[in-house]
Amino acid sequence: MGPYENLAKVRQQKPLIHHLTNWVTIYDCANILKVFGASPVMAHAKEEAAQMSSFANALVLNIGTLTVDFVESMKLAAEAANLKKIPVIIDVCGAGATKLRNDKCFELLDSVKMDVIKGNASEVAFIAGEAVKTKGVDSGKVDKDLTAIAIKLAKKRNAVVVITGKVDIVSDGKKTYLVSNGCEMMSHVVGTGCMAASVIGGFCAVNNDLADACVNGLVCYEIAAQLAAKKSKGPGTFKEKLFDFAYSLTAGQIKKYQKIRLL
Amino acid sequence: MGPYENLAKVRQQKPLIHHLTNWVTIYDCANILKVFGASPVMAHAKEEAAQMSSFANALVLNIGTLTVDFVESMKLAAEAANLKKIPVIIDVCGAGATKLRNDKCFELLDSVKMDVIKGNASEVAFIAGEAVKTKGVDSGKVDKDLTAIAIKLAKKRNAVVVITGKVDIVSDGKKTYLVSNGCEMMSHVVGTGCMAASVIGGFCAVNNDLADACVNGLVCYEIAAQLAAKKSKGPGTFKEKLFDFAYSLTAGQIKKYQKIRLL
Amino acid sequence: MGPYENLAKVRQQKPLIHHLTNWVTIYDCANILKVFGASPVMAHAKEEAAQMSSFANALVLNIGTLTVDFVESMKLAAEAANLKKIPVIIDVCGAGATKLRNDKCFELLDSVKMDVIKGNASEVAFIAGEAVKTKGVDSGKVDKDLTAIAIKLAKKRNAVVVITGKVDIVSDGKKTYLVSNGCEMMSHVVGTGCMAASVIGGFCAVNNDLADACVNGLVCYEIAAQLAAKKSKGPGTFKEKLFDFAYSLTAGQIKKYQKIRLL
Repeated sequence: MGPYENLAKVRQQKPLIHHLTNWVTIYDCANILKVFGASPVMAHAKEEAAQMSSFANALVLNIGTLTVDFVESMKLAAEAANLKKIPVIIDVCGAGATKLRNDKCFELLDSVKMDVIKGNASEVAFIAGEAVKTKGVDSGKVDKDLTAIAIKLAKKRNAVVVITGKVDIVSDGKKTYLVSNGCEMMSHVVGTGCMAASVIGGFCAVNNDLADACVNGLVCYEIAAQLAAKKSKGPGTFKEKLFDFAYSLTAGQIKKYQKIRLL
Repeated sequence: MGPYENLAKVRQQKPLIHHLTNWVTIYDCANILKVFGASPVMAHAKEEAAQMSSFANALVLNIGTLTVDFVESMKLAAEAANLKKIPVIIDVCGAGATKLRNDKCFELLDSVKMDVIKGNASEVAFIAGEAVKTKGVDSGKVDKDLTAIAIKLAKKRNAVVVITGKVDIVSDGKKTYLVSNGCEMMSHVVGTGCMAASVIGGFCAVNNDLADACVNGLVCYEIAAQLAAKKSKGPGTFKEKLFDFAYSLTAGQIKKYQKIRLL
Repeated sequence: MGPYENLAKVRQQKPLIHHLTNWVTIYDCANILKVFGASPVMAHAKEEAAQMSSFANALVLNIGTLTVDFVESMKLAAEAANLKKIPVIIDVCGAGATKLRNDKCFELLDSVKMDVIKGNASEVAFIAGEAVKTKGVDSGKVDKDLTAIAIKLAKKRNAVVVITGKVDIVSDGKKTYLVSNGCEMMSHVVGTGCMAASVIGGFCAVNNDLADACVNGLVCYEIAAQLAAKKSKGPGTFKEKLFDFAYSLTAGQIKKYQKIRLL
C-alpha cells in the first residue's frame, strides 16, 4: 500500500487513535490526526486508559512529560492494546536525558509489546544501548551508523524502528527505508516530532504492514510540511498551513514530491 | 436579549469564567472567551477550585480528560458556584465511552446543580438514558428524536440542554430552539465543541435567561466560524480566522446570518 | 549587551530553558522560545525536575495552574537551578487571587532564590505586600507608584522585578528601566504574559546582567508583537504572525522600534 492509498484508507475508515501523550503538544497531536481524517482521543486516567484502548484502532504513547503515575496508565493502555492486537507506537521523547525517563522508557519497552519505536537520532541510539547524550528534547549529534542501529534495534525489539531527521530511517529489521521528505522549517516549531508519531499511529491503524505504514505516514505528513513551508513567512503561519495542506493533500502532490528509498 | 445584545454585555462586563476543562483544548477554551471579551481562568487544584468559583461569573466543566481527583475538584468548584448562584455548564465530552466517564458524569449530575448540560447527540442521548454508543469524542449516530430527548432531559435535570450538531438544539424544558448556524469545517478541527461550551459559559454569565444565552452564544460563535470558513484554505487557517472573526463580530453580521427557530 | 546582541546570543547558543509552567499556555511558552532560537523543555515529574535543571541554562516557573504537588516539583527544580547558578524566573501568575496561590507563592519565594520575579501590576503589588485584589489572571488596577514598588521588592528579594503592562518596569534595585514597546492586541490573546516570562528566561540564560536581559527580552518580544499586529486582522492571525516575526527579527527592526528608558 503506497502513501496515497494509505491516506485514503485513513480518510475513509477514520480510525480511532488513542493517546497517552505529553501536555505540551497534546493539541497538535490530536489536530494533525483530525485533519488527516482520523479520530483522536486522549484518556489518561488509570481507570479508563485500558478500556479506551479496547475501542481504539491504534495507541500512541509519548513520554515527553511523563510521571510515574502516567507511565502506569500507559502500561494499562498498552496491555489492552496488545490484547486487542492494535498497533502501539511509542515516541521515546527525551530518552537519554534523565534517569526517570530512561528507567521508565526501558520499563515500558520491557513490559509491553511496542510495535513502533520512534525518536530522533540520539533518543533511538540511547534506546538501542549506544552511548549518547540527549539535550532536552532536541537531538544531539550521533556519529554511529544510524541505519545499522535502526535495523539492530528493530530485530532486538521485534518492532518497526523510526528515526526521524533530515532523512528518516524506517526499519522492521527485514526491510529498511529512507524517507527524504520534510523541510528545515519543521525544526523551528515545537511539536513536529510528536505530530509525526501521531500520524504514524493513524497510518498504522489501517495498514497491516507497519513499516510501510510508518513510511507512508511520514511521507504524507512531511510533504504537507514542504507545501506549507513554501507558502509561509515563518514558523507561526507555517504551522497553520501545515494543517491546511495535510487536510487537502492529493494523490498528485504525493506522487510529485515523495522521496522514498528502499535499501 | 438577542445575540448581539448578549455579546455586547460580555464585551462590556468582561465576566470571569472559571474552568475545569480538558488538557487537549484548554488553550482554545480560554482564548475563544478572551476574543469574545470575557476573562477566562483555569484553577483545578482542590485547594483553590472552590475559591476561584467564588470570584467567577460562571463555571465551565468538561470531562474530556477526567481523572478521579479532577472530578473531586470539579465538585468543589461546582458546589461553590451553586452557592454563589452562578451558572454551571457541563460539557459531557465523551460520555458513553467508558465506565469511568459514565459513572463520573452521573455522579457530577447527581451531586451538584448543573445549569447547562451540553454535548453532541450521542453524548446527550447517553446522559438521557437512551441506549447509544459513543466512539471516542466524535459523535456516533442517533436515530431517536433528539428534540424530544433534549426536552425530557431538561425537565428531568431542571437544566438547559444543548445538543450540538449540524442543527443545534437548545431546550430548558419549556421553550426549545433550533440553531442552524455553523459550518462543516468546524468538524475538521479539534476543540470546536469544547470552545462552544466555554462561549456558552461567557454568554450565560451575563444573561439570566440561560436558554437564550446558550442560543446567543452558539449563534455568535458559529457565525464567526462561518465567516472564518469563507476566508480559509483549510482547517489550520480556519481556526486562526475564527478567533479574528469572533473578536470583531458585529451586529450587522449577526443580523445577516443568524438562523434561530423557536419551536 | 543590547537587545539585538542578546538575541544573537540566544540564536547562537540555543540555551536549554527548563519550565514548570501552567497547562493553558505551555505550548506557547515552548514555541516562543523555539522561534527565538532557544531550546525549551518541560519536565515536571518530581523524580526528574531537578535533574533536568542540572542540564538547563535557565529555569522558568509559572504558577498559573499550580497544585501542591506541582509546587514541590518547582522547589526541587529551583533548588537544583540555584546550585548550578542558572537564573530562575518566576511568573507569579494570578498571585493575589486565592489563598493557595498566595501561600505557595510566598513559600516558593522564601524557600528558593528567584532571580527574576515577573507579573502584572496587581500580581507584583501583591507579592510586594501592597493591598490589591487580583481578578483571575487579568490585571486589576493599582494606584500605587509601581516603579517604587518594583525597586523596593527588587531590593527586598535581591531579584530583578519585572512588571508588565502598557509600560513595562524592570528593576534590579539599582537600575530601573521602562520599556514602552508592545501593543494593545497582546491583551486580547491568552498567553502573552506567560510567553514574556519564557522569553525572559531565554535572554537571561545568555546574559549575566539579568536586568538588561529582561529588558532585552521584552523589547524583542514586544517589537515582534508590534510588527505582527500591523499585519493582522485580529487576535488569531496576530498570534501566528507573532511567531513569524519573532523568528525573523532583525537588528534593523529592533533599532527602529525599541523604546527603552533608564530612570
